[in-house]
Amino acid sequence: MEIELGRGKRARRAYTFDDIAVVPSRRTRNPEDVSTAWSIDAFQFDIPVLGAPMDSVVSPQTAIMLGELGGLGVLDLEGLWTRYEDPTPLLAEIAGLPDAVATARMQELYSTPIKPELVTARLAEIRAAGVTVAGSLTPQRTQELYETVAAAGVDLFVIRGTTVSAEHVSSVAEPLNLKKFIYDLDVPVIVGGAATYTAALHLMRTGAAGVLVGFGGGAASTTRATLGIQAPMATAVSDVAGARRDYLDESGGRYVHVIADGGVGTSGDIVKALAMGADAVMLGVALARATDAPGQGYHWGPEAHHAKLPRGHRVKVDQVATLEEVLYGPAPVADGTANLIGALKKSMATTGYSDLKEFQRVDVVVSPTR
Amino acid sequence: MEIELGRGKRARRAYTFDDIAVVPSRRTRNPEDVSTAWSIDAFQFDIPVLGAPMDSVVSPQTAIMLGELGGLGVLDLEGLWTRYEDPTPLLAEIAGLPDAVATARMQELYSTPIKPELVTARLAEIRAAGVTVAGSLTPQRTQELYETVAAAGVDLFVIRGTTVSAEHVSSVAEPLNLKKFIYDLDVPVIVGGAATYTAALHLMRTGAAGVLVGFGGGAASTTRATLGIQAPMATAVSDVAGARRDYLDESGGRYVHVIADGGVGTSGDIVKALAMGADAVMLGVALARATDAPGQGYHWGPEAHHAKLPRGHRVKVDQVATLEEVLYGPAPVADGTANLIGALKKSMATTGYSDLKEFQRVDVVVSPTR
Amino acid sequence: MEIELGRGKRARRAYTFDDIAVVPSRRTRNPEDVSTAWSIDAFQFDIPVLGAPMDSVVSPQTAIMLGELGGLGVLDLEGLWTRYEDPTPLLAEIAGLPDAVATARMQELYSTPIKPELVTARLAEIRAAGVTVAGSLTPQRTQELYETVAAAGVDLFVIRGTTVSAEHVSSVAEPLNLKKFIYDLDVPVIVGGAATYTAALHLMRTGAAGVLVGFGGGAASTTRATLGIQAPMATAVSDVAGARRDYLDESGGRYVHVIADGGVGTSGDIVKALAMGADAVMLGVALARATDAPGQGYHWGPEAHHAKLPRGHRVKVDQVATLEEVLYGPAPVADGTANLIGALKKSMATTGYSDLKEFQRVDVVVSPTR
Amino acid sequence: MEIELGRGKRARRAYTFDDIAVVPSRRTRNPEDVSTAWSIDAFQFDIPVLGAPMDSVVSPQTAIMLGELGGLGVLDLEGLWTRYEDPTPLLAEIAGLPDAVATARMQELYSTPIKPELVTARLAEIRAAGVTVAGSLTPQRTQELYETVAAAGVDLFVIRGTTVSAEHVSSVAEPLNLKKFIYDLDVPVIVGGAATYTAALHLMRTGAAGVLVGFGGGAASTTRATLGIQAPMATAVSDVAGARRDYLDESGGRYVHVIADGGVGTSGDIVKALAMGADAVMLGVALARATDAPGQGYHWGPEAHHAKLPRGHRVKVDQVATLEEVLYGPAPVADGTANLIGALKKSMATTGYSDLKEFQRVDVVVSPTR
Repeated sequence: MEIELGRGKRARRAYTFDDIAVVPSRRTRNPEDVSTAWSIDAFQFDIPVLGAPMDSVVSPQTAIMLGELGGLGVLDLEGLWTRYEDPTPLLAEIAGLPDAVATARMQELYSTPIKPELVTARLAEIRAAGVTVAGSLTPQRTQELYETVAAAGVDLFVIRGTTVSAEHVSSVAEPLNLKKFIYDLDVPVIVGGAATYTAALHLMRTGAAGVLVGFGGGAASTTRATLGIQAPMATAVSDVAGARRDYLDESGGRYVHVIADGGVGTSGDIVKALAMGADAVMLGVALARATDAPGQGYHWGPEAHHAKLPRGHRVKVDQVATLEEVLYGPAPVADGTANLIGALKKSMATTGYSDLKEFQRVDVVVSPTR
Repeated sequence: MEIELGRGKRARRAYTFDDIAVVPSRRTRNPEDVSTAWSIDAFQFDIPVLGAPMDSVVSPQTAIMLGELGGLGVLDLEGLWTRYEDPTPLLAEIAGLPDAVATARMQELYSTPIKPELVTARLAEIRAAGVTVAGSLTPQRTQELYETVAAAGVDLFVIRGTTVSAEHVSSVAEPLNLKKFIYDLDVPVIVGGAATYTAALHLMRTGAAGVLVGFGGGAASTTRATLGIQAPMATAVSDVAGARRDYLDESGGRYVHVIADGGVGTSGDIVKALAMGADAVMLGVALARATDAPGQGYHWGPEAHHAKLPRGHRVKVDQVATLEEVLYGPAPVADGTANLIGALKKSMATTGYSDLKEFQRVDVVVSPTR
Repeated sequence: MEIELGRGKRARRAYTFDDIAVVPSRRTRNPEDVSTAWSIDAFQFDIPVLGAPMDSVVSPQTAIMLGELGGLGVLDLEGLWTRYEDPTPLLAEIAGLPDAVATARMQELYSTPIKPELVTARLAEIRAAGVTVAGSLTPQRTQELYETVAAAGVDLFVIRGTTVSAEHVSSVAEPLNLKKFIYDLDVPVIVGGAATYTAALHLMRTGAAGVLVGFGGGAASTTRATLGIQAPMATAVSDVAGARRDYLDESGGRYVHVIADGGVGTSGDIVKALAMGADAVMLGVALARATDAPGQGYHWGPEAHHAKLPRGHRVKVDQVATLEEVLYGPAPVADGTANLIGALKKSMATTGYSDLKEFQRVDVVVSPTR
Repeated sequence: MEIELGRGKRARRAYTFDDIAVVPSRRTRNPEDVSTAWSIDAFQFDIPVLGAPMDSVVSPQTAIMLGELGGLGVLDLEGLWTRYEDPTPLLAEIAGLPDAVATARMQELYSTPIKPELVTARLAEIRAAGVTVAGSLTPQRTQELYETVAAAGVDLFVIRGTTVSAEHVSSVAEPLNLKKFIYDLDVPVIVGGAATYTAALHLMRTGAAGVLVGFGGGAASTTRATLGIQAPMATAVSDVAGARRDYLDESGGRYVHVIADGGVGTSGDIVKALAMGADAVMLGVALARATDAPGQGYHWGPEAHHAKLPRGHRVKVDQVATLEEVLYGPAPVADGTANLIGALKKSMATTGYSDLKEFQRVDVVVSPTR
């Protein structure tokens, strides 16, 4: 399947979710008979949905809501909630900024130092609600803050960067030794993004409970224009699912969860991510579209306020419905942005599958949208 | 022809009608020498056109018109005509609704219960005109209403759902046993949608006289965004035609008709559907464009008023000409929306074929439109 | 290279000019050293350009101009010039018609009978100017009018229809026996459109001096939407060039000229048509863009005023420059619509070729435009 | 990998930068540890960036700035700076011209003869600033002016034309004997464009120190519409890199530098050009976007004022930031037009590479943008 690009280079063809579609098979089921449950370590969830650690998606309050709705909200422990006592007015301010000054003002807002005591307080607030607690740090900050996080208590610890590798090389600082770190830590760790078989396999060998699949940091189109890098998601998820299978054998039975993180904007994308082998999806913009999302109609990630190389923007999003309706309907629109779980169940039922693990085997065709 | 999407998944390339074109060969004919006739069971038709069971396409009156014009109109027995004594003002109301309230009002209108006596009356009205009578139910309603339908008398019975399989699994209700149902019923049954070789083969084995090819319920783009599902029609029709051929052998000579149902919006699409092996096409929007179609400039299917997961909208369509002109011209436009049969005959004549069965062998090329 | 579209159908991938590009090689030349001359039978031309027999492209006057500029204008002997003593005011009227009534009025204008004495007069007018004389009939009219044409005297006789085959089957009329007709006639005949190897080979065997490659009658996009038919031109030209090579061998040395007729709208397209093996190109819209073209800013073919199935429209075109400038520059624009011959020479020189026959061997790559 | 276009022609699939993307691997690095240095002959540069010899990109002043910023500005020795004592008001005039008259006025401005004494003066001005001095001539003018250039003193001599071959054939003038010319000259010569393996290999054998890869003269889309020619850059760079490797062997160790010249408009394109095997990139529009570029918001090349066959226009460009910011940030935008070097370093670091030569081995996938 190798393609010769020229006399000096060969390449694989890689596929995005837009290149593929799920196809029905000979059996059908009732949507009522379909289960969307999954579990990671000791934690069980009704729906395979993680809220992405971004200030426009997950606040302590939405983490609680998502937990109560059957999913998992991951709080960004380097966002506004750990820098300010009360970021509520700042979120409103960001939503009100004219485009011309948005980046500059956000750079300012995110330059205030992180306060460890706020890390503790935010996680306690989520825990108090009785839902699974998950917080996220970048690899760069993990060593500085993880003890605070561990002391505050999290159920799941997420290390999330643009690309996280098990072999980071640095001449200026001792890089995070993931293997040792995960071994020492007492909670399961989800780590990524990883976009290839090898990168994911190495992360699995560090002891991670889950791997985020994707190339984080901004929309695919922006990343491609800026960095020339793209990890087409259908291929990336499938490659990492291949690593999961091989590592399961190599490790004598350790099943590392594969979580698609990026390029999952609609219910159709969720269906395809799971079809390609993901155990769950981490949603950003898909949840930022909720009327009760903290972004208040806007969505941004850390790359949008990067000091020297912003690779994204504060993006205006359509507010389609409440978070509950975004997940469970009724859907006021027919474009895959609402009733995500209803659509997933309908898709699984129509193709004859009754649980997520089986659904990973559903037939897929290549048929690019135009 | 298998493609490796990633280490964990392989897929076929599947083709839509937009990906292909028919090519001329070495022989040409006079359009006057071309026949577009076909028959199913004892029923013969001049043109391979079925009107889709949708309230915007087929009313009792248009079923009669279509029959008189050589085709077959299939009445939706779960639509407005079996819920209301006189749906005429409601059709006008739907055509006049502002977009913002259309879905909600349609959900209301379609929640009125179906009246069995109206099923009887509508079918009698069509029969009285002397044309072939065909009515359609969803698999969910078939058990409840088929006796009424059978008693009222239909020539052809259509069971049409998003995806209909011979193996529906349900824990909450006894699913329709298609094989037994078709065996018991005295009229030929057309059933679908089916989108794959295996699904179609299983439907053929239930004794169906015809199989609808497609993944029903809304435009392909909407279904793909919402459910992640697409059954690219050129491949689907060809696969089901392959099942027809294999079942013909397996059954010792039973020819099950293949009817393309979905993605057939222009005369060019009709040509391609037949070229891929269809015996006939079921038309929705192509007929809803008639000035005398019941939709009065709008088109919608049952998925547009689904209570929790609408996967379509009431769509405004261009009204191009009368139903007769849409089928036989003269065409006021040159975009494949009028004189469908004239175009079909021209296409068959230009490529040298004189009947539909032969035309299934016409040469096709892959050449995607941009 | 066969593709399986589905279980019941296989197809070739076919290519349009937009799918390909010519690539430079290791040698370059001076544009001044490049010859664009070609000849067919005893007639020699400086440039491989035929004006298409369409009223918007070739009048007796433009036929003369084209001849004087080194090309060949082919007069449509079934157009306005053989129906009216003075069609000049009618051409102006067509250019002034509102869109809404254009088709109807043109249908009217073209229903006036053809006057044989005008056929004679128009051909005499062209002959009097000392240029090569060429006129065109459809296969349907050839038997009725060819004696008039032969008597009037043409140097080259063109039979041009949507698709012309050597094996036309008709139950209502004796079809034109091309082989006998060409044998009896004393002038070389150019015939087409043909779009495949086999169709072209059969036409060559009738004794034709040239074959028009294409599927006539309207823009490719319109034909595809209406008839489902497309003959992607890069593949079609190459296939017919293959037939020329095989027929050259089979006939013991008769070289039949291949003329690309359709899809050649820019100088880039001319380059690609020749690169794929054409000996010359027949230009429609490319010449209709001349300020002194008879269409006066509009372009149409016979399919635009077809009585029942119009497969095209009167199309407004940009008037870029005089006919001489369209062919030889200077070019006021840089989009391939002016200085067609200058661009062709530059392209041949840049890739190192000095005449058209050699240039048919130039390297081509597949690289679809987006 | 050959594709049959038709019975008479085969072709390769060729790839543009838009068809490909770089993919992360298992290792990551700190951007601070990444070197973007390269050298050609005795000259070392911090960044692999050459300013294209175009009046909108490189003036003597920007050549100096580019040199001080670590790159190399190549002055067009046939542009306004060698025709006029003070072209500053003319550059302002060009930036102020209405579209309608721009081409005509530029044709006028560029018809003033080149003054050898100005060639000497401009090069002296750049040399006085202490940066590497590079000037460019077309093959047509090289013989006439190179002695002036050599006497004035350049560090690197660039011969740049649309397509430059080692085998130019001309009946009207003795073509430049590149091999002899380069042998006689005392400074390293960079020559191009070349777009294929063979053309590049022949140029390498003339003794060139570097080869420009591309098909010069206007945007790819314009060239394709006008000449039918395209050299898809990803394939072209890779093919020429293949020639570099084979020539290295054949010559017993002479490493000829490969410089992508064309189609490199964003930082993503720079990344891809280097990934395909380029040693450096020659930037036009990417630098013309600088607020302090001489084009003052416009960009044009010699093809835009060609007398008979303009294959481009004076193009308005967005002015994004100062030249320093365009190269090193901070980037006010996230579309790959600013902080080109920051993006390159980030991309190299993310994929685990520490220098440009190693980065040529980075993994690439085919995944066309839509």
